Amino acid sequence: MRATVTGFEVHDIRFPTSERLDGSDAMNPDPDYSAAYLVLHTSDGSAGYGFCFTIGRGNEVVAAGIDALRPYVVGRPVPCTAADLAAVHRAVTHDSQLRWLGPEKGVMHMAAGAVVNAAWDLAARRAGAPVWRYLSGMTPEELVALVDFRYLSDALTPDEALDILRAAEPGRAERTRKLLREGYPAYTSSPGWLGYDDAKLVRLAERAVADGFRQIKLKVGADLDEDVRRLRLARKTVGPDIRIAVDANQRWDVGEALRWLAVLAPYDPYWIEEPTSPDDVLGHAAVRAGQPVRVATGEHVANRVVFKQLLQAGAVDFVQIDAARVAGVNENLAILLLAAKFGVPVCPHAGGVGLCELVQHLAMFDYVAVSGSREDRVVEYVDHLHEHFTDPAVVVAGRYRAPGAPGFSARMRPESVAAHTYPDGPVWQTPKHPS
Amino acid sequence: MRATVTGFEVHDIRFPTSERLDGSDAMNPDPDYSAAYLVLHTSDGSAGYGFCFTIGRGNEVVAAGIDALRPYVVGRPVPCTAADLAAVHRAVTHDSQLRWLGPEKGVMHMAAGAVVNAAWDLAARRAGAPVWRYLSGMTPEELVALVDFRYLSDALTPDEALDILRAAEPGRAERTRKLLREGYPAYTSSPGWLGYDDAKLVRLAERAVADGFRQIKLKVGADLDEDVRRLRLARKTVGPDIRIAVDANQRWDVGEALRWLAVLAPYDPYWIEEPTSPDDVLGHAAVRAGQPVRVATGEHVANRVVFKQLLQAGAVDFVQIDAARVAGVNENLAILLLAAKFGVPVCPHAGGVGLCELVQHLAMFDYVAVSGSREDRVVEYVDHLHEHFTDPAVVVAGRYRAPGAPGFSARMRPESVAAHTYPDGPVWQTPKHPS
Repeated sequence: MRATVTGFEVHDIRFPTSERLDGSDAMNPDPDYSAAYLVLHTSDGSAGYGFCFTIGRGNEVVAAGIDALRPYVVGRPVPCTAADLAAVHRAVTHDSQLRWLGPEKGVMHMAAGAVVNAAWDLAARRAGAPVWRYLSGMTPEELVALVDFRYLSDALTPDEALDILRAAEPGRAERTRKLLREGYPAYTSSPGWLGYDDAKLVRLAERAVADGFRQIKLKVGADLDEDVRRLRLARKTVGPDIRIAVDANQRWDVGEALRWLAVLAPYDPYWIEEPTSPDDVLGHAAVRAGQPVRVATGEHVANRVVFKQLLQAGAVDFVQIDAARVAGVNENLAILLLAAKFGVPVCPHAGGVGLCELVQHLAMFDYVAVSGSREDRVVEYVDHLHEHFTDPAVVVAGRYRAPGAPGFSARMRPESVAAHTYPDGPVWQTPKHPS
Repeated sequence: MRATVTGFEVHDIRFPTSERLDGSDAMNPDPDYSAAYLVLHTSDGSAGYGFCFTIGRGNEVVAAGIDALRPYVVGRPVPCTAADLAAVHRAVTHDSQLRWLGPEKGVMHMAAGAVVNAAWDLAARRAGAPVWRYLSGMTPEELVALVDFRYLSDALTPDEALDILRAAEPGRAERTRKLLREGYPAYTSSPGWLGYDDAKLVRLAERAVADGFRQIKLKVGADLDEDVRRLRLARKTVGPDIRIAVDANQRWDVGEALRWLAVLAPYDPYWIEEPTSPDDVLGHAAVRAGQPVRVATGEHVANRVVFKQLLQAGAVDFVQIDAARVAGVNENLAILLLAAKFGVPVCPHAGGVGLCELVQHLAMFDYVAVSGSREDRVVEYVDHLHEHFTDPAVVVAGRYRAPGAPGFSARMRPESVAAHTYPDGPVWQTPKHPS
């Protein structure tokens, strides 16, 4: 008899990161990194884990969104195949009543992503494979069947997707070996948070270079003179050969972005990330066309339809997928295929709570089975909160090691869950955290 | 001493509309029209009302989103001026942690809209004016200060907005008189729900014409032959002089829309509404450029940034604002100004629960103080659920009468709230409504 999903626990987990200004940027001055965390249990004793990342307040709203999807999971057979995982994705994104709350954006879409990713974690754990290998073991036909092509066919048809995947098939084994040997390049954003003083910036930038990173990232967008000063300081610290990306976190209008970047460009920023609203496809295209710095975006892009347009409009040089904002592995597969079709490299967003853990799998799968390339590709890395995961991402000499443990690296340590449960966990009982 | 907001009640209200297939379309086959309903109370005994419209499941998630905004309202002074209402809008849309859950889209943005609209309802009630007149009494400077121009300035600057409003100022009094005398043109979608049989379609279409409507709307997109048949039947019923708009409710990809519309176009549909994803600016532009039927969209457009692009890209012939999806009156004012700048008429979406009640105020204000025109403009009307409101929209001879009661017409009857509270209200206790 086939096992069924019997348990669906939703936890509101928050870390008091605002105390040290980790994660501070021009739009998000004091985040408390948080996760609406989902645990699935099965009738035969296995479990799967998934989550949404938030920055504090409202984490309970996302938890409510996940909870609304319970009927699509509990009591149903455990997903074991690509077809099962396509069905889970379809069920949680196509409920006509819940779709009204997006469609396919915001809280309900993030919630759908947590459920889809938990299903992938569960299926991969049961198959004994890390998600990147589990995905890389699927046929092109199985992979194409995972994707919802609705609203994509003017840019990417199922047949074109099949062609992309088939073209990459012969090299899968060789690239898997290379990945296991060499890992996947990372860059670090740890030095560049806006709330850090110069000494901390310099110390962390030096450490990043010493640790083998070839790219760092600085937050910009609050004060132009300060940005120039910090960019020069960082350049002086890391030397000419290390890439320095900058990230405005949606701070600018189009005209402001152009004026600001005209001043920053001579300091050779590698890319400008989120120069304006993540919804503004035409705005990104104008920013890319109007100044020399390469444009990257994606961590707040709501869904595959907006990514499609960013590519159609020639608005981005780098596609920054996020593992936990869109509807999970399935929708990110759609985005990887779109990027491959348009020949734009994918450089995933990470950091937060567990985003490094998740997205490394998608980048590695992209290398093995979709784009087939690590050229111009790099996964963000931020060195915090990994200790709360049972299978933390491992970055050595500036490269992510290929995860070996089964699943999506999505499981939090039970003691971390207990300690950081909001508002009743012990971490939130001290007078330091009055909110 | 200035009065403060002391009460913030959130209600989950659902109507079992799926029983009769009212509201059924190609994407939403069985909606239970619902509202996450907010009641504000003040220290001096007044009250304000606002809500999000949903179609059933997930209404509790939106209610949780509204609840997350409680700290921005309760204990604060009652909003009494344009500046106060600008501050409320800013507070609920700029919380950096909550913004992460959109940004500015989906559940949290709808929730922000409910709070903003409740603040407007409250302020207008206290001023003794219906919202359309309350707004029409503000100076151009006050109105401009209500708008968040972030991400808009490449298409509309505050100075340009001021010019638009000043140009309309001299005619305000005359247009107010005309509005009070003549009302505002409506069209009806009541005949065209996809779940209705031919006899009901014909009967309701005949009634619409007899009632004085000059435009009706049919849902399309499920079956092309059926759509042609129903369009011919409707045309035969209403004659050549009544406009028949069609609405695909996002059912198509771009290519499908073009193929489908090539077949429908000879039957002279007045516009095609939501031909594809509401996020697909470039897709709408391609649909508009590729066939002769005028394009309308907006009820699911997430925010002013997407409306901006629809206008920049020449993607729409009609802008369909929705009173309860974006962040309330303030953001809809931004959208009205954008539409005026680009010279595109606004034809608001309504129906649902209370959307006619709200949006009539915005259309009338647009006529009096923004676009200054009713030309090519028409507000949707659907004849259901009005009986649950204390100041229901009144449509006579195919025209909305200008509301006279103070506020935003947003208050539900207390007995309706009690009866339809989900899941504990009496309406949901009968075996007919097992969900």
